[in-house]
Amino acid sequence: MKATGPIPSGYEIVDGELAIGGMKTSALVAQAGDTPLFVYSTGHLRQRVADLRAAMPERLAIHYAMKANPYSPLLSLMNELVDGFDVASGGELELALNAGVDAARISFAGPGKRDRELQRAISLGVTLNCESEGEAARALAIGAQLGITPCIAIRVNPSFDLKGSGMKMGGGAKQFGVDAERVPALAQHLIAAGADWRGFHIYAGSQALSADAIIAMQAQTLALVGELTDAIGAAPPHVNLGGGFGIPYFPGDEPVDIQAVGAALSEAFDVLPDILAETEFCIELGRYLVGEAGVYLTRIVDRKISHGEVFLITDGGLHHQLAASGNFGTVIRRNYPVAIATRYEAEPEEVASIVGCLCTPLDKLSDSAHLPRADVGDLVAIFCAGAYGASASPANFLGQGPAKEMLV
Amino acid sequence: MKATGPIPSGYEIVDGELAIGGMKTSALVAQAGDTPLFVYSTGHLRQRVADLRAAMPERLAIHYAMKANPYSPLLSLMNELVDGFDVASGGELELALNAGVDAARISFAGPGKRDRELQRAISLGVTLNCESEGEAARALAIGAQLGITPCIAIRVNPSFDLKGSGMKMGGGAKQFGVDAERVPALAQHLIAAGADWRGFHIYAGSQALSADAIIAMQAQTLALVGELTDAIGAAPPHVNLGGGFGIPYFPGDEPVDIQAVGAALSEAFDVLPDILAETEFCIELGRYLVGEAGVYLTRIVDRKISHGEVFLITDGGLHHQLAASGNFGTVIRRNYPVAIATRYEAEPEEVASIVGCLCTPLDKLSDSAHLPRADVGDLVAIFCAGAYGASASPANFLGQGPAKEMLV
Repeated sequence: MKATGPIPSGYEIVDGELAIGGMKTSALVAQAGDTPLFVYSTGHLRQRVADLRAAMPERLAIHYAMKANPYSPLLSLMNELVDGFDVASGGELELALNAGVDAARISFAGPGKRDRELQRAISLGVTLNCESEGEAARALAIGAQLGITPCIAIRVNPSFDLKGSGMKMGGGAKQFGVDAERVPALAQHLIAAGADWRGFHIYAGSQALSADAIIAMQAQTLALVGELTDAIGAAPPHVNLGGGFGIPYFPGDEPVDIQAVGAALSEAFDVLPDILAETEFCIELGRYLVGEAGVYLTRIVDRKISHGEVFLITDGGLHHQLAASGNFGTVIRRNYPVAIATRYEAEPEEVASIVGCLCTPLDKLSDSAHLPRADVGDLVAIFCAGAYGASASPANFLGQGPAKEMLV
Repeated sequence: MKATGPIPSGYEIVDGELAIGGMKTSALVAQAGDTPLFVYSTGHLRQRVADLRAAMPERLAIHYAMKANPYSPLLSLMNELVDGFDVASGGELELALNAGVDAARISFAGPGKRDRELQRAISLGVTLNCESEGEAARALAIGAQLGITPCIAIRVNPSFDLKGSGMKMGGGAKQFGVDAERVPALAQHLIAAGADWRGFHIYAGSQALSADAIIAMQAQTLALVGELTDAIGAAPPHVNLGGGFGIPYFPGDEPVDIQAVGAALSEAFDVLPDILAETEFCIELGRYLVGEAGVYLTRIVDRKISHGEVFLITDGGLHHQLAASGNFGTVIRRNYPVAIATRYEAEPEEVASIVGCLCTPLDKLSDSAHLPRADVGDLVAIFCAGAYGASASPANFLGQGPAKEMLV
């Protein structure tokens, strides 16, 4: 038997079934018309942003990194809740605009921006988080060609990383950003060339659960901002402090102590140098805002025994849940939080593996979990499916196609 | 510096550039209109099947497992070259039919077949490779309901696996097939219930490079077929011996010695028991047939230095090449074969990492490879991109969308 991750708070039980937004999962599936289905909870999303705002200093803006979940109704909701959007491609930029996001609230990071993406962003007044001297030169040239002043921040590759981070984005040689020591010269060049200087984007890592690690990273980031500002001789209008706030996926994981992070950041803001008095600060979060608000529902189509082990075979799989299957940036596969949604109150009574319908042994959604007895027709819930699920999985693998999605 | 995998044979050089089917890569990209682009070589595909047929006993049919690559023009070509198709979903079944494949030449394996998929397959006369007693019962019931005799083979979960296999599909508890000891009873039940008994599908693993391992697996498979046939008391009209033939991806990998496999299989066929005299045998290959026939072309959009290391940033990435990035069933990331397509004859003169355009450190296409000096605008080729590329990657991740594909 292998443990499963902690089920996020905020979900209910109705008639013995898992319920989301007051609706039973079987009713949600009936409404959607079929499984597999991603359900995102409006209540959960609102609560998450409200809790975060309450914990963080008022001066801190909250941006949504839409790479975590670009589902259009969810983007529209997030547009009401957050202060800005970070996009990572021209495609995401169009999705954000289509969901009603004001271009002036959008910043665009990503190491491989094509000329046509730069053109579109500059023409809309989107802030470019510039990733290299070469990209800066292209942006200036395109701005001149279009007769539009480009809004440019510099993405900094810091010399530190986020300790305990699931994914390091700083420290050492990286494809992201400009090495910190070269940033002052580039910033001065941009200012001299007439760009609308927007400041810094400093992203050192993601998916950390330790408040201490996040606090240390934010302190290092603010110190770096101070050094860079001194070297440039001009205040950054805006500083994106990055993200890094993780969510619990696996057995033993504990949520980030956001009160501690917020208190430390308040103290740090109180002692900022005078030159940063007018600077706007933001954090940019994706997974933390939306990850726990999503549930993936899939139906059991076969129940079989092989060499004494029980396999629950579903109509879902890694084509929608690549990360849960352990095949996306994971070294050792561990179980996400899972449940039999239609027997949510039943006692566990057997050890079973939940697998997808794909003809590959990689397609395992939960390995040897302790579960209520489930049968063909029951619904399985995979939690923490709000981020890097539908859009980060190979939906067309084995001719399957995308899952349904709904926001309730 | 890290080594890269061996470039497959069959590619040419024209004017110092990599060429496919006689066309320079720059010309192919111009014809397609944009990068990233998958190019599949008709010549390579034809040669591969011809070489395989020459090495294998005449009695052995060759089936294509279309999960490896479902690109429609490629399916149409494979339909001319092979004897049958294996599909793994209702979606793949429709893709095969649309490409002109005769339903009578199609078999359908996969552990999570839905009722509607069974209905469609049975109504078309597709052979079901039945994965469990439960699925067999559903198939019989659906056949009765439709008034159509279902064509049913049993997928066997063998007690052995393929040694050195990249992916084990047999041996121990598995979600695939019916444990060998339960197969005779199920086969007798299917025959008694009036199904059109089609025989066995026995797939013990994939991506092995050792001829000895494949020979041993085929010998074990044939022995198992003999035992099952004796226990059932009726000959299988058809036996699918599975696949397992790998291709070289990584430094030091050597191609499968198909002459040795074919010779051993000929000898094994010569001593089959009389009851199997009329049985048709096939192997089912995906990656082996199409993997080395494909090249992924992506353009360098930035060249940058971070802490003294060179990064070539392309407009492609793991959203099309998940496996090459090391994020699909891989424990230790190694480099696929890669080249600077537009400087194919130039001497290597620097160590550089080739990365994708995605804003994630997972998006690495080649780590610290020894390459000719390349610059913005050059084309990068990732080889072995014919299988599990376009369809097995999260194309919509970060708003990117699918790559272009062409068959030349």
